[in-house]
Amino acid sequence: MLAMNLIRCCLSLARRSPSHFLNLSTTQTLVSPSSSRFKLITFQTMVSRAYTTPSHPSGKLLFRQLFEKDSSTYTYLLADVSHPDKPALLIDPVDKTAERDLSLVKELGLKLIYAMNTHVHADHITGTGLIKTKVPAVKSVISEASKSKADLLIQAGDKIYFGDLFLEVRSTPGHTLGCVTYVTGDGPDQPQPRMAFTGDALLIRGCGRTDFQGGSSHELYKSVHSQIFTLPKDTLIYPAHDYKGFTVSTVGEEMLYNPRLTRDEETFRNIVENLSLPYPKMIDLAVPANIVCGLQDLSAKPVEAISN
Amino acid sequence: MLAMNLIRCCLSLARRSPSHFLNLSTTQTLVSPSSSRFKLITFQTMVSRAYTTPSHPSGKLLFRQLFEKDSSTYTYLLADVSHPDKPALLIDPVDKTAERDLSLVKELGLKLIYAMNTHVHADHITGTGLIKTKVPAVKSVISEASKSKADLLIQAGDKIYFGDLFLEVRSTPGHTLGCVTYVTGDGPDQPQPRMAFTGDALLIRGCGRTDFQGGSSHELYKSVHSQIFTLPKDTLIYPAHDYKGFTVSTVGEEMLYNPRLTRDEETFRNIVENLSLPYPKMIDLAVPANIVCGLQDLSAKPVEAISN
Repeated sequence: MLAMNLIRCCLSLARRSPSHFLNLSTTQTLVSPSSSRFKLITFQTMVSRAYTTPSHPSGKLLFRQLFEKDSSTYTYLLADVSHPDKPALLIDPVDKTAERDLSLVKELGLKLIYAMNTHVHADHITGTGLIKTKVPAVKSVISEASKSKADLLIQAGDKIYFGDLFLEVRSTPGHTLGCVTYVTGDGPDQPQPRMAFTGDALLIRGCGRTDFQGGSSHELYKSVHSQIFTLPKDTLIYPAHDYKGFTVSTVGEEMLYNPRLTRDEETFRNIVENLSLPYPKMIDLAVPANIVCGLQDLSAKPVEAISN
Repeated sequence: MLAMNLIRCCLSLARRSPSHFLNLSTTQTLVSPSSSRFKLITFQTMVSRAYTTPSHPSGKLLFRQLFEKDSSTYTYLLADVSHPDKPALLIDPVDKTAERDLSLVKELGLKLIYAMNTHVHADHITGTGLIKTKVPAVKSVISEASKSKADLLIQAGDKIYFGDLFLEVRSTPGHTLGCVTYVTGDGPDQPQPRMAFTGDALLIRGCGRTDFQGGSSHELYKSVHSQIFTLPKDTLIYPAHDYKGFTVSTVGEEMLYNPRLTRDEETFRNIVENLSLPYPKMIDLAVPANIVCGLQDLSAKPVEAISN
């Protein structure tokens, strides 16, 4: 109990001084047999030690946007290629395209350390679990608020390092209760302009639906305006989906042209609460799988579903 | 006749000294009532005058990749947003998504000056003609070798300026007789790394088929190795299509991992000449339309096919 309180205290301090979190390499990750939250605290305590000796102050981002056509899902690969390990992470991988993503990681000589989700998806099965079976050192990441199983359960304010680059976590509920937006770091050695991986909170000229999984049009409006529209206007918006063939937008563009989120809250709520969308065809399969990060328990999944 | 010879002489000189071509703004474009080739010569002669006073030496590229799902086609939007006019061009627009592209151009405050094709597509109808009906000042661009109709018929070595940025034309036949690759300029005020819009000559981990429209596996092999693989290894490869969800590659990656083009020529030819691909379902509709740049003559096209 004393140990747990000490760790909570460290986490609290770390959250108040986020600049002290730095540079997680896979060899620094500690895996604890207890709760997922405990694991995160442990690695954050570890990584703070590396702060004084950043070996690659001008970290260089390798970035790839990948598309899964059936669910129109974007998966994002990010790596610090100036770091000797070339540590990499995947945001919102899909089970069907996990082999493709892992092949690319291998060809590019990267070391995949995280497979992350922005939220519990209802329209496809995450590739996280499958990736972990292929590359056991990979840690799955999702928000604590999603009430899902993963190696690292993150919260608003956490920083997720890959080499000398990092993503900061912003809480953006509304599409689901546990939605987060991952934003590349702010600072001279971080990529400019910043990049926001918004999941289904903010789509290009649109937004996610709010009629299931703890969805709330009020929360979604608040999330986008307080957590995304407050970023610099040149921040690049990379959503989890696009259905019209757009690949990227910016905060400034969405503040001007998003047909829903440029409206006042009441109009916004009227729009998204009256979309009359069909019941998502994958939801009954996808949500139960995704709350255990896809295929964490492979015995529950037919083998043929694993290959692309 | 004397005038034509003089112009041909100017063009020849300009080709030998490509650094003299600079900075086409739309107001500088001359449209001649005679041949398309004549029009190109005219604007190249005009733009060379602007060389000594480049108003925006540090041109800044706005770049958007756009996707058309039915034919898995990528359209690219490029603009010089540091130039007062924000001149822009579209590479390989599709008729179905022309409205989307024009809306984006408008929202971003750009002035579209060119709608270009890498080649005569067989799998979709180009949006070039449709775009010209909506924005008459736009000039259509395709290679002279394609034997197609367009406002500007380009050749290897030509430079296509939009503001202070430019694309150079490389001849890359093999998929069709008239295929070209557009490559962003080389120089301190041009985007780095360079970007190559390869059409169907080089795809990500693949290449275009060579069994129709003057296709030649020998020519394709030679084109990729002499015109694309000779670019710097960090040059970004942006193809006309991707069927697996990749959005970009690099010259270095394709030189290492392209399963066809890393092989010797004989093996390559054996592979591409024995693909047993089905007859392209759109070819009988697309090719006749595309040799007149899509819908140059709108009267030949049913109205309902115009909207997205």
